[in-house]
Amino acid sequence: MKILIIGAVAAGTSAAAKARRNDEAAEIKIYEMDSDISYSACGLPYYIGNEVEGREQLVPRNAAFFKSKYNVDIYTGHQVLSISPDEKSITVKDLSSSVIFTESYDRLVVSTGARSVLPPIKGAEKKNVFVLRNVRSADAIKSYIEQTKPRKALIIGSGFIGLEMVENLKKLGMEAAVVEMEDHLMKPLDNDISIYLRDVVVKNGIQVYLEDSILELSGEEVAKKALLKSGNEIETDMVIVAAGIRPNVELARKAGVELGVTGAIKVDNRMETSVKDIYACGDCAETYSLITGKAFYRPLGSTANKMGRIAGDQITGGDLEFRGILGTGIFKIFDHTVALSGLTEREARQEGYDVAVCHNIKPDKPEYFHGEEMLIKAVADKKSGRLLGVQIIGKAGVDKRIDVFVTAMTYGGKVQDLFHLDLAYAPPYSTTKDPVMYTGMILTNEIERGRKLITAEELANRLEAGDNVNIIDARVSKQYQQNHIANAVNMPHEGLRNSMDELDRNAVTVTYCNKGVTGNAAQNILMNSGFKQVYNLSGGHKHFMKVTKGKGSVSN
Amino acid sequence: MKILIIGAVAAGTSAAAKARRNDEAAEIKIYEMDSDISYSACGLPYYIGNEVEGREQLVPRNAAFFKSKYNVDIYTGHQVLSISPDEKSITVKDLSSSVIFTESYDRLVVSTGARSVLPPIKGAEKKNVFVLRNVRSADAIKSYIEQTKPRKALIIGSGFIGLEMVENLKKLGMEAAVVEMEDHLMKPLDNDISIYLRDVVVKNGIQVYLEDSILELSGEEVAKKALLKSGNEIETDMVIVAAGIRPNVELARKAGVELGVTGAIKVDNRMETSVKDIYACGDCAETYSLITGKAFYRPLGSTANKMGRIAGDQITGGDLEFRGILGTGIFKIFDHTVALSGLTEREARQEGYDVAVCHNIKPDKPEYFHGEEMLIKAVADKKSGRLLGVQIIGKAGVDKRIDVFVTAMTYGGKVQDLFHLDLAYAPPYSTTKDPVMYTGMILTNEIERGRKLITAEELANRLEAGDNVNIIDARVSKQYQQNHIANAVNMPHEGLRNSMDELDRNAVTVTYCNKGVTGNAAQNILMNSGFKQVYNLSGGHKHFMKVTKGKGSVSN
Repeated sequence: MKILIIGAVAAGTSAAAKARRNDEAAEIKIYEMDSDISYSACGLPYYIGNEVEGREQLVPRNAAFFKSKYNVDIYTGHQVLSISPDEKSITVKDLSSSVIFTESYDRLVVSTGARSVLPPIKGAEKKNVFVLRNVRSADAIKSYIEQTKPRKALIIGSGFIGLEMVENLKKLGMEAAVVEMEDHLMKPLDNDISIYLRDVVVKNGIQVYLEDSILELSGEEVAKKALLKSGNEIETDMVIVAAGIRPNVELARKAGVELGVTGAIKVDNRMETSVKDIYACGDCAETYSLITGKAFYRPLGSTANKMGRIAGDQITGGDLEFRGILGTGIFKIFDHTVALSGLTEREARQEGYDVAVCHNIKPDKPEYFHGEEMLIKAVADKKSGRLLGVQIIGKAGVDKRIDVFVTAMTYGGKVQDLFHLDLAYAPPYSTTKDPVMYTGMILTNEIERGRKLITAEELANRLEAGDNVNIIDARVSKQYQQNHIANAVNMPHEGLRNSMDELDRNAVTVTYCNKGVTGNAAQNILMNSGFKQVYNLSGGHKHFMKVTKGKGSVSN
Repeated sequence: MKILIIGAVAAGTSAAAKARRNDEAAEIKIYEMDSDISYSACGLPYYIGNEVEGREQLVPRNAAFFKSKYNVDIYTGHQVLSISPDEKSITVKDLSSSVIFTESYDRLVVSTGARSVLPPIKGAEKKNVFVLRNVRSADAIKSYIEQTKPRKALIIGSGFIGLEMVENLKKLGMEAAVVEMEDHLMKPLDNDISIYLRDVVVKNGIQVYLEDSILELSGEEVAKKALLKSGNEIETDMVIVAAGIRPNVELARKAGVELGVTGAIKVDNRMETSVKDIYACGDCAETYSLITGKAFYRPLGSTANKMGRIAGDQITGGDLEFRGILGTGIFKIFDHTVALSGLTEREARQEGYDVAVCHNIKPDKPEYFHGEEMLIKAVADKKSGRLLGVQIIGKAGVDKRIDVFVTAMTYGGKVQDLFHLDLAYAPPYSTTKDPVMYTGMILTNEIERGRKLITAEELANRLEAGDNVNIIDARVSKQYQQNHIANAVNMPHEGLRNSMDELDRNAVTVTYCNKGVTGNAAQNILMNSGFKQVYNLSGGHKHFMKVTKGKGSVSN
């Protein structure tokens, strides 16, 4: 059995290692164009930001390691030029000697990864314009920073890499600006969550340009100024292009391998492509959503590792199969963490679900233990109660909650289940009822008990449309006087049982408090007293203000 | 509808609040002997340790709060003397006036909590001997510390409260000793995990006495010395008794309410007792295990809250039902966290399961990101693959992993599922494959792929019995030379493909490395080369040394 693998980063080396664990006799070779192998691409922004101490920490393994540990031969600096499925062979060029040779295979694994999208920008060839894609490009950025001590950086794109670069360059002492084509940062987030992210970024002194793009980078050898479509100009000493990545599929496509609807290589649950004995895994391959069952392209290191291991198992007789993913993502942005998994509200609506949506603002542990507030936005299918997706932003404990939601969603969990989870409680770690449980309780109350929620966006739209809505501010009068939603009347929770008689029981009524809990209490009182159509404002006054104030795309 | 509730801590107030949310018209009264209500009992050790800043943070709600927010009447300082199910009434004594009166109910909720177990110790009545059970007892401890500035403390019992008190008193600058009747700290843990806990405690300067108990506390008004069964003597300035709690069931029992096998009040999933219209919830009520379906008594704040909410829902026409718990617990002990959920190895074997057991030592995030090592001990059913229980100890990220395991176990998760979880990965939060996923991979390899594990205890027993076992130390020779398991031969992983020919392919063979990963690689090489009976040492050399060295019960 002879196994050839193209590409030696996450998926390729995972496939090789798993194949060897299964099969001592197989001949296993990997060809890699680059000089570095098996590195953590996700660590690159932190390597540039000097959070990761040395290059060898990021690239702990070399070809000798794989030879001695796994008896796998890795050839770096070797470009695969073509695949011939009929002859079951590949043509390889040794980039150092320029020698071209042919090598046969019994099984071929394509793990050619992805490449960065380069938007058409005049002046993008200037020497201080960088794309972060591999260790060498990180080295180039690092050494440029050390040599020229740039004071200002411009980041194009606000995905994971873009935002992590924003943070790391800022921490190196630079001023930073980020330009994003979409109307909100981190496209996969819902707009109302992205607003929190934007505010964190802006609060840390970053300039944010939304719905904008770079037309030209001007300067002599180096870009010194960016001209934006909006007409704005940004002075800069270096530019990082992080405008997304596309799967490297040319080799496979030319060999007749079928591509999926996303443009990535189509594979089955065994990671086999449309061509027998050719497998694909990692950032070049298409995955599918555990929620919708539909194909999607969500290139992440964790998924690349999974796919690689499955491919390695299958090509050596194993039965491990891919089960789909939720598209879970997480990133650190200054003192905050942002995480998402499953469908956003926007995606769920596009998929045709009748959705229940809640915005649950809770501390990660008791306030007496210095808990930090997080916002959990959760989306569920009203019909089945199934949890469809979650987005969270907060300072602490976000990674824990997203992973609990991920696990529940993996098992097709319903919102009704979450309250019953016997999660670990002690004051240093959680509140008696964990924020995950509250999320389930809120959505269950909506779906099963008629405790309807209205989102800030829905309420704002209704108000803008001039709809007749009675809005009850259930907070204490001092809070009401400081700030309240237009036309809201103040009926504090404590006195509501008496004051509600003034209200029309048949009118559409919206209750709210600061974050939602007392608003729900007020809603309960009204509904249990015969009010017909009562909505609690999801996320309360706090979230409403966040979402409705200043939609401006440039902030500082 | 008239609802009476006995007890106003976690379960009772939860029941009242939920009842009111469902039903605006019900009359709801709570009788409570104590002066404080609705406090966080779990926060008490931290209140004493001054981590919680003020008493009002721990007891944020009073009777006036419940009246104004929930229209619930709470009578503190009122002792319920008896329940009369036939007349559907209770007899109450106002402790301040000594007036006794009768009150009728439609539904009665018994949430009488638990009381501390007081071991029969001569001198236990002395004024510096304390039991921590409620806010007033915490106040007494706090004020005794402030007034007398004790230098030495003795803690009897090593459950959650005992160990949390050890930490908090130590942090106040005291020397502390803990005496435990069992042969290991924190009885619900397996012995091999408790050893790690003991070492953390000892490393922080605490004296630990195992399989021991106090015969007498001697001194004039205050206990100054403890005489132990072992003959040891401990000097002390104050004593905390934390020897466990027992459910307060007398009121219910005398009213004819059936008790369960654990001695707590038997309830159905609706929290109703054997007597119609009498419900019970919280620390006085029995629960059952999600894994075994059997009754058990695991009084925890999180469960008390759940039960209270369910009772409150049921008595007002709701359909919320208890689904059983895993008995999840977590506690902080100095810079470490210890967590457990589901069955321990000992419990799983007692239940008759054929168990697979792994000890997985992994960092919580990449080493290049300063990851901290944790040990995950997981127990699974070999027949079904179902995950039965998990115990974790480590410095960081323990709470996240236990909650992910809890969620998976709640859905009847199998070890085969864990690899597929799309958990959130970015270097600040996790390794590319999360420790949870590795746990699943290790156990799946054992259950499905014949990659058998042997625990340190099993190997030690086999060695002690003189069994013929070939032990292969697969580490580099420098590590072998520093320390190795008796009779092990050093065959480093890198050269094993050549050196293995010296070995008997039919002999029972154990491979090991430091923590288990390379031991598994060596196991793979041997098994794929025709070796018949190869075991990888679970947790590797590191765990073996921890478990087998120094079983002494007193350490310092």
